[in-house]
Amino acid sequence: MSEALATLVIGNKNYSSWSLRPWLLMREFGIAFREEQLALDTPGFAERIGTLSPTRRVPALHDGGLVVWDSLAICEYVNDRWLHGRGWPERVDSRALARSAAAEMHSGFAALRSQLPMNSRRTPDSYRWDAAAQADIDRVQQLWCELRKRHADEGEFLCGRFGIVDAMFAPVVIRFDGYGVQSDETCMQYMQAINALPGMREWRDAATREPEVIEGSEKRG
Amino acid sequence: MSEALATLVIGNKNYSSWSLRPWLLMREFGIAFREEQLALDTPGFAERIGTLSPTRRVPALHDGGLVVWDSLAICEYVNDRWLHGRGWPERVDSRALARSAAAEMHSGFAALRSQLPMNSRRTPDSYRWDAAAQADIDRVQQLWCELRKRHADEGEFLCGRFGIVDAMFAPVVIRFDGYGVQSDETCMQYMQAINALPGMREWRDAATREPEVIEGSEKRG
Repeated sequence: MSEALATLVIGNKNYSSWSLRPWLLMREFGIAFREEQLALDTPGFAERIGTLSPTRRVPALHDGGLVVWDSLAICEYVNDRWLHGRGWPERVDSRALARSAAAEMHSGFAALRSQLPMNSRRTPDSYRWDAAAQADIDRVQQLWCELRKRHADEGEFLCGRFGIVDAMFAPVVIRFDGYGVQSDETCMQYMQAINALPGMREWRDAATREPEVIEGSEKRG
Repeated sequence: MSEALATLVIGNKNYSSWSLRPWLLMREFGIAFREEQLALDTPGFAERIGTLSPTRRVPALHDGGLVVWDSLAICEYVNDRWLHGRGWPERVDSRALARSAAAEMHSGFAALRSQLPMNSRRTPDSYRWDAAAQADIDRVQQLWCELRKRHADEGEFLCGRFGIVDAMFAPVVIRFDGYGVQSDETCMQYMQAINALPGMREWRDAATREPEVIEGSEKRG
């Protein structure tokens, strides 16, 4: 008897930073799943999201009769259900730091989010942001640097091997690339490691090819 | 050889909703810890927070040489370090729902947070909030109702026994009490269960007795 695949409900690959997190985690750990895509800010989204997500937001994961929502909670569920804990570092201290950084990303960085929205197709231009967004950028880079230095001997990701904490920050890598954010050597190397992931390439390729119309609904604005 | 106690750095008990979460979890599970209190928005806070928390925000937990920050990440660390997983429900489906609800609280409800700030001493008056805050209130109550109905036979908290998901919503109970938010019977019973916790009584008593001046610094405004 074959088990039915879980379905991950996501938004546009070009814009939906929160969708990328669990999608990338599942891809990189080889979890087979169905993908259901709804274009953000469209009548089609408004019609269908109510039956797919209790918060009316993407992402949401459907597994059997269970609906799990919120990017971080889906990552924790994937870790519980399929990864047997491998989504977080094995050492308790590294795991605590990974969870702290992931949680800081989950609830914070409002200026960065609003002024540098994710757009996979963007290339740097003369657009600039205010001091609050720059403070967010500085904090993200400080965090990346500290975690990379602490785990330099264990792998090329924030806490050694790729895990949930990296999936949580992957959309920031797309933001920094798209807006031409200045980075030091340590941050550049980390961004290269994220960009070299097969899942990141697949996501960015799909975003580039994505029509502005998905599911028969036109993108607004 | 006795192990040194961990130290939880918190803000004013009257105002710091994020501090209450890990504090209540640790109290209710009987984890002995030291408490270090800094008054929010004071010169004393500004002087000391830099050495105590990498985000310059409370709460932060110091355990040996390790510093863990963010209310949710601290709760996960407490679960890993002392609770052996008992902070979340045992069943994988309930655990997924508990984590989804906790994560939704962690990153959402901006209108509720800003328009109904936690104030342990507050009593209901004529102050009212806008439609966005009411929509947040409605969603919190819907979530409480659904989780309570699903776990009605397992205990009086959101997923049966008291756990991290309840600690994450405990500050909302103080908000709803203080602003006189209308609740149905299911939500009322849940709020009563939270308010009856010994840790909640201790926190609210301490908040009531708390001077506006802590650590030699005056409360602003």
